[in-house]
Formats: sequence, C-alpha cells, structure tokens
Amino acid sequence: MTELLERIFLGAGASKAVASILANNCAACERDGSLSHGVFRMPGYVSSIASGWVDPKADPRIEDVGPAMVRVDAMNGFAQPALAAASALLIDKAAATGAAILAIRNSHHFSALWPDIEPFAERGLLAISAVNSFACAVPYGASKPVFGTNPIAYAAPRLGHPPLVADLATSSMANGDVQIAARECRALPRGYAVDGDGNPTTDPQVVLDSGALLTFGGHKGSAISLLIELLGAALTGGQFSYEVDWSAYPGAQTPHTGQFLILLDPDRGRGIEFAARTEQLIEQMFFAGLSRLPGSRRYERRAETMRDGIPIDAQELGRLERMAHDGAWQA
Amino acid sequence: MTELLERIFLGAGASKAVASILANNCAACERDGSLSHGVFRMPGYVSSIASGWVDPKADPRIEDVGPAMVRVDAMNGFAQPALAAASALLIDKAAATGAAILAIRNSHHFSALWPDIEPFAERGLLAISAVNSFACAVPYGASKPVFGTNPIAYAAPRLGHPPLVADLATSSMANGDVQIAARECRALPRGYAVDGDGNPTTDPQVVLDSGALLTFGGHKGSAISLLIELLGAALTGGQFSYEVDWSAYPGAQTPHTGQFLILLDPDRGRGIEFAARTEQLIEQMFFAGLSRLPGSRRYERRAETMRDGIPIDAQELGRLERMAHDGAWQA
Repeated sequence: MTELLERIFLGAGASKAVASILANNCAACERDGSLSHGVFRMPGYVSSIASGWVDPKADPRIEDVGPAMVRVDAMNGFAQPALAAASALLIDKAAATGAAILAIRNSHHFSALWPDIEPFAERGLLAISAVNSFACAVPYGASKPVFGTNPIAYAAPRLGHPPLVADLATSSMANGDVQIAARECRALPRGYAVDGDGNPTTDPQVVLDSGALLTFGGHKGSAISLLIELLGAALTGGQFSYEVDWSAYPGAQTPHTGQFLILLDPDRGRGIEFAARTEQLIEQMFFAGLSRLPGSRRYERRAETMRDGIPIDAQELGRLERMAHDGAWQA
Repeated sequence: MTELLERIFLGAGASKAVASILANNCAACERDGSLSHGVFRMPGYVSSIASGWVDPKADPRIEDVGPAMVRVDAMNGFAQPALAAASALLIDKAAATGAAILAIRNSHHFSALWPDIEPFAERGLLAISAVNSFACAVPYGASKPVFGTNPIAYAAPRLGHPPLVADLATSSMANGDVQIAARECRALPRGYAVDGDGNPTTDPQVVLDSGALLTFGGHKGSAISLLIELLGAALTGGQFSYEVDWSAYPGAQTPHTGQFLILLDPDRGRGIEFAARTEQLIEQMFFAGLSRLPGSRRYERRAETMRDGIPIDAQELGRLERMAHDGAWQA
C-alpha cells in the first residue's frame, strides 16, 4: 500500500522525500484503522496539490533559535516532512536540556497527529503536539466558527508495552469523520454542530457546506481549543485557523497553518523511571474498571492488519490505481 | 485581608515566607471571586496543618537538572512556596533556551492555578501548568475514581490588556464547588457525578462521602486528565492522585501530589509579537459573537473589589478572626 500511495504522490508532483513520508503516514493510518486519515484522504491530497495551494516539493528551512527551541518554516509544504527534517535536532535538544519545543509554520497538516509523536515515545520521550486547522468550530459562547478542529495528541513511554498514545480533536468531532458521515449519509450526533445561522443541526452536508462544529466539552474544551490556536499559530508564526483563505485555490483542502510539538525527557535528573510509573497508573485504571486505553483500538487493528494485510475493497483499490496511473500519465 | 490570613497561617505554625505566600494567594482568590479557593479554604488549610499531614515550615529544595528543566522537592510543603523559590531560575532558563519546565513533587496544592501563572504572562511569557490531586474522578469507561480534579491552566500575554488566563478542572467540576454545593445544600448538575457504586447522583454530600466525579467532555476530557496525571506525578516524581493516603492524618485535606509548569518564550527567534497576535485572535472571537473570554469574570471582579474592597459577611469575618486568635493562642 505504501508503494501504491507513494506512486500517487510522485505522480501528483511530490518530491521523492515528501512522497515517501506522506505515503508511509497515510498507509499507517489505514493500517491502524484511522480511516478518516487513511486512503480516504488521497483525493484531498491530490486535489490540494493540483490546485497549487500546497508545494509538494517544498524543502523545509530549520531555524535553531535556542537550546530548547527549533522553528521550522515548512515553505508552504506539508508538516510531516518539516517534522522529519527537525526530528534529530529536537531529540538532541531534549536530551541536552530536558525539554525541546518545535514550532512549525507555513505548513499543511492533513493527517492524524499520533503518527508524528509515537516514534518519540518509543525512544523513551514524552511528546505532546497540536495543530490548528481551518475555521470550522465555534468557540463556546460565540455563534460563528473561529477555531479549527484543533487536535492535540500525546505519546508516553510504557514499560514493556508500546507507547500510550491519545489523539483527540478539540472540536466535537474530526472533520474527516464529518466527511465520512456525509459520504455515508449518516446523521451526526445531536449537540455536535450548528448550521450557518448558528442553529443546531445533525446533517453532515450542511456542516460541510455552511455550518460549523462546536468544541467538545463546553467552555472547557473551548478553552483548550483556544490554547491550541495560540500554540499552533501565535507561537509558531503560522496562520490562525480563521485566517486560512484558500478561495483562490479551488480544490484546496489542506489547512495551511502551524504545528506545535514539545518533547520532554521525563527521567532527566533522577532515577525513577517514567515508563514504569506510567505502567502503574495504567494498571490502576484497569483495576478501576477500564477496559480500553486511548489508542488501544489502533494497536489492535495494527496487529490484525500486520498479520492479515490491510483490507481494501476492489472499488477503492481501483480508484487508487487510477489515481496513480493518471498522475503518472500527467507527469 | 492578606494581613488577617497571614496571622492565621502564622498561628497555625507556618513559616513567615509560607504564611505570606499562602495569604496573598488566598486573598487574591477571594478578591477575584474565585470563592472556592478563597477564605472558604482557610479551615481546610488550618486543619491539614494541624493534622501533621503538611509541613508549613518546609524549605523547598531546588534541583537544576538541565538548561530547560528545574525539579523541586517541596519537602512535603505547599506548592506555591516551591514555585516561588524556583521562579527566577525558571524565567532565566526560558529566556536563555526558549522554554523551561518546572517539575514540583512532594507538594500540596490547595488553591487555584491561575495565581501561579498570571505573573509569568505579565512578563510576556506563555505559561501552562497542571496539578493532580486526590482520586475523586472516574476515568471514562471505568467505574471507580483514579484521577484527581486535575486542573490545567494557561496564561498568555495580550497586547495592551492583562493576560488571557484560563483555569479549568478536567473533572466535571472542581472539588471546592462540590464542597460549596454541599454546604449550601444545592444539587449538582446531572451527569457530573456517581455514587460509590458507580451510579449517577446529584447529591454533593454523597459525592464527598463515597462517590466520585466524572471527567469533563467524555473520553476526550478523560484523556487530558490522564495526561495531567502523567505530568503531575510520573514526570515530577510526585504521587498519582490514587496514591494519596491521608488516612493516618485525620483532618488532612490538601492533596499531596505534584505540579507541572512550562514557560515558553513565544517571541524567541523572530520579530512577530505573540501578544499582538493573541489580540488579533481575541478580536476575531468577539467578532464571532463571543461576549466573555476565559477569566474575564475574575478581572471584572478584581476591578470591583480593588475599588470597593472585598465584601465579607460579619459571620465569616468573625470566624476568620477567631481562627487567627485561636492559632496565636495555641502558638
């Protein structure tokens, strides 16, 4: 699947490095059952690239601005290659100082956040990341959208287990899930969204056309979404979600904003092992009746697909193969 | 009011430094209308100190563990004196590196978080802090409490205005508000709490005696509360909320856990002013129909009380004066 997706990205005009990173990312989402960020997203990637909105050959520019901070100008490219370019420096800084901040601007993030941070936790680091997106969520107490879906994710090392990874939109749901609901003609849950006049709606197409999501958890979720705008845009130097204006680029779907990431060296300065303590907390949660950790469905799905392969229906596969062929033909 | 509260703390056995910091903190909460952390909390402070559970003379020990990380052993004292002891070093580190982490363990935090971080934002820094507390909130999908109320707060500089400060419990509500509801015999909102068997309840006394709160915002709020346990305990070296065992100290009310704080120098490495960008976002939120920012009630209340004084009824004042007198007499 990675090879097929890579051909699509290359055919659409991506550089070899960008195509490889995005193909691996998208295939990993499909593998783990993160379907709203899997192959479902490929037409959006291709359409955004074709529109001229995002540069699929961009070469990110790294700015080493302090012992604990790295800025990256993604040069209007995707965020994942910018993160990949800065990763080694960021890890070095966290190891040297105890913590390191990555502030990516001028970037497009069109995937889940968990693939960005899981690798850091596999190295024993605690990672937290957030991106803003495009205005589609109404601040608590307001009537029009200002915030993006503004996901936040964290990954923590566990002793003897793959990392604990949580990834959550601070909107009531993810945009990808609204798109899937619209495609499948499924109503949204009540209390999740409003129409263009600020009235409640459960129609996903109305939300996509003229409405907006609410933030999760009332004023508290809204306060966290606000923090993510500050981190993803005001801190990075990127655009706020409401500043994204792709009207001159029909077909554009990727939010052109920013990404914030913090790495913490959790054992620095002492002998206690963070990963072992995390394990004690998780044991206590199961003791208290929990049956699933955040992210556990992804790991279960991953085990299944690594054993049995990634299921994909013939129609979807045909669509992807046509995209690879058309792009190659165009190129 | 600060002077009266300081006499109470001194009478209870606090050192001069601790008494001054806690009195200022508690009076500031009362001044700003943060009533669940105001003078209402004084009997809890005095009772906890009298029980021997917390050391009101503790001298925090600072560990400089890296260019971007400070650890503090609060030596079983209150968290605020530990923060005060580390503040200058932390600010220096953030200025030198771009970011700095403070990890306080072996500490008691019995107040709101906003007083801890507002001063950093007044200096142009972005501050985020979280504390865990004692097991009183049920993880989403579990039946028994594991997490504390686990508040998170942030403070961001604004151009031409006092900082934007949000402070929110990741439980459905704050423990102080449960206590106030119990005292005033008011029912809790539905869906906020469970009894000892995990069944829904609206009775605040049941919650305090044997029940528990839920986390806010379903599985998403629960994932954030889990992160706060990791930051407040696994990272700091403090206790998880479920590990707090004060059974040998009747009268103890202060959670003996940890505090996490991160300072970011948001303008580091570029000319764009974070505070000005924050202001643009806030303007857009008002344009979208917002009438109140997080924390705005506190600022309004502060303006009123700075002009008119802090209102306090005669009975409450008498109670405080008796506490000051009794403590002095005991000492």
